[in-house]
Amino acid sequence: MVYLDLLLVGFGNVGRQFARLLQEKSVQLRRDYGLSWRVVGIATKRHGSAFDARGLDIVKALRLAEAGTSLDVLTGAESERLLPADASGLDLIKYATSESKLRRLQHLVLVETTLLDIQRGQPAVDHVITALRGGAHVVTANKGPVAFAHREIRSVAELAHREFLFEGAVMDGIPVFNLVRETLPVADITGFRGVVNATTNYILTAMEAGRTFAEALAEMQGAGIAEADPSFDVDGWDAAAKTAALMNVLMHGSATPRTIARTGIREITRDRVEDAMARGKRIRLVAAAERGDGHPVGHVAPEELDADDPLAHLTGMQNLLILQTDVLGSIGIHQLDGGLTQTAYALVSDLAAIARRVGRDSS
Amino acid sequence: MVYLDLLLVGFGNVGRQFARLLQEKSVQLRRDYGLSWRVVGIATKRHGSAFDARGLDIVKALRLAEAGTSLDVLTGAESERLLPADASGLDLIKYATSESKLRRLQHLVLVETTLLDIQRGQPAVDHVITALRGGAHVVTANKGPVAFAHREIRSVAELAHREFLFEGAVMDGIPVFNLVRETLPVADITGFRGVVNATTNYILTAMEAGRTFAEALAEMQGAGIAEADPSFDVDGWDAAAKTAALMNVLMHGSATPRTIARTGIREITRDRVEDAMARGKRIRLVAAAERGDGHPVGHVAPEELDADDPLAHLTGMQNLLILQTDVLGSIGIHQLDGGLTQTAYALVSDLAAIARRVGRDSS
Repeated sequence: MVYLDLLLVGFGNVGRQFARLLQEKSVQLRRDYGLSWRVVGIATKRHGSAFDARGLDIVKALRLAEAGTSLDVLTGAESERLLPADASGLDLIKYATSESKLRRLQHLVLVETTLLDIQRGQPAVDHVITALRGGAHVVTANKGPVAFAHREIRSVAELAHREFLFEGAVMDGIPVFNLVRETLPVADITGFRGVVNATTNYILTAMEAGRTFAEALAEMQGAGIAEADPSFDVDGWDAAAKTAALMNVLMHGSATPRTIARTGIREITRDRVEDAMARGKRIRLVAAAERGDGHPVGHVAPEELDADDPLAHLTGMQNLLILQTDVLGSIGIHQLDGGLTQTAYALVSDLAAIARRVGRDSS
Repeated sequence: MVYLDLLLVGFGNVGRQFARLLQEKSVQLRRDYGLSWRVVGIATKRHGSAFDARGLDIVKALRLAEAGTSLDVLTGAESERLLPADASGLDLIKYATSESKLRRLQHLVLVETTLLDIQRGQPAVDHVITALRGGAHVVTANKGPVAFAHREIRSVAELAHREFLFEGAVMDGIPVFNLVRETLPVADITGFRGVVNATTNYILTAMEAGRTFAEALAEMQGAGIAEADPSFDVDGWDAAAKTAALMNVLMHGSATPRTIARTGIREITRDRVEDAMARGKRIRLVAAAERGDGHPVGHVAPEELDADDPLAHLTGMQNLLILQTDVLGSIGIHQLDGGLTQTAYALVSDLAAIARRVGRDSS
């Protein structure tokens, strides 16, 4: 049996859905992976923080967070004097890793789900590095760390003998990184192209159905999927961050979102979409990378695609990533449904991978 | 370092391509998986058999087989009197497993690539069971064993503590079984639908381009892709065998190709294809399964698909399998290129998995 002590930094929609899914899949995780878990700490942006080395009541924590009440009442008596009620995520990580060392706990895992600052990848990068240095494993659904600092984090993790997993960073829970690592041995990824941003794909297909850019964007904002500031999606930043992440991990790149040549979809009007359709074409925001002179080169831009291009037929919020390999030709991995549960599942699948490796190392 | 002794039963196009790819990827297999290999035995249908416990010269074996010359000249002196020159695959497996026991070799691996008898799944099923009982691991690109006898083979393998892997059985080398096993922990596969037969998809898309059924079939036969007897493909037997294999492994079924409701594409004329296209539809041969009352139910039949169905746009020899899951919704895995190298790669990827497990068990 592997016992994991979880530290949830970020307890918004994804973090809370993760907590629910973990409870739901508890029996299977125990049966299939020998994984037993408890949540020892939670840091939120607006509802305080809590820590108890004996384990927090996660049902109560969910109820407090959803009622908009501070979680700090859950903090165990022995941590009360040491951990301020308004401790930041970083404070909590530092406190938990030192506590963990004092108690010689081996299997602390940071579950990182904070919002991404696309300019710098923070605070996620600091969270991840501090946790790994402190002896915790890390799973994250945040694309910041792997898009901005993959190489550095990789070496910190190796030095600390800790796992750093991030399946949810690019295509929600659809396996991409695990797909390559676990199922494509000795295959060389020579490039990729895909549609990896759901909001822009929704807007483009809504324009094909006759709506304007502004109408389609408003729908996504109304549904809570696009942010109030749509730049992250429509200017291609999200796709660029995912492109950098894929290049860094699958093609040994050292990209950041800013090194990706990037054009968004603001210039794409309903007229242009309809004009393309009249010629049998579809416009999609394509993220791609290929090997240049040794170094991979990445770019994000709207492209007019032929009808026989698999990317041309993605509707609504679907994503599709096509990997180019030396031994298998092109393989596509297709996300037909996306959302919170999927992203939360990615974190659970990363935890299962950690349980498997920890179990193996200690057997 | 893990040393694997390989026994190639079947040395046709797939078997020979496997031998070539294995040589090509030798350095990476050694570096990334600590895998060192040699081929100790080869059984062919028409060019005799060979065995040498010290390892066969694989380059020479390829040359002999391609020249249509018998391989028996390669047999080592000490095996000559014991193994007849016309030994069958089953003879060779029995001989090798007894030799292997005598020498206390632990890591004999059967690489099974014989042709499938769709009525009974033989001789592959016997090959696989005899090898596992004799203490060998098994990798196969043959869908017979997993479509006809998955449950029995599974328990023989467990009893013998040997691996039985078959990634190439359904979608050439595109990961399907490894995808679920290695990257979708605690996910429940509730059903699937897909286009899994390349020949029929080629025929259907060729009819969309204006050719007749007979013309399209003749093209595939000319290219050596469809058999002289096209029944295996066009009557849906191949798709039914793959459906049974997927149900047995991913949904804990006990199907065989004969328990799959099956309609082929012989009734589909160019007129019907064009009529469907005029209504914005596409006809594809769809293989699917869903949970009935506890038991999965499988079927293969041509279906008229809407334009927004991801299966509708598969052209030429492309395949796409869509898995329905409880936690991730629907996921598609898309084979854009298929062929010999892909199938051979599936066998190599299965070998790498065996090396990883053997290495883990002995560390």
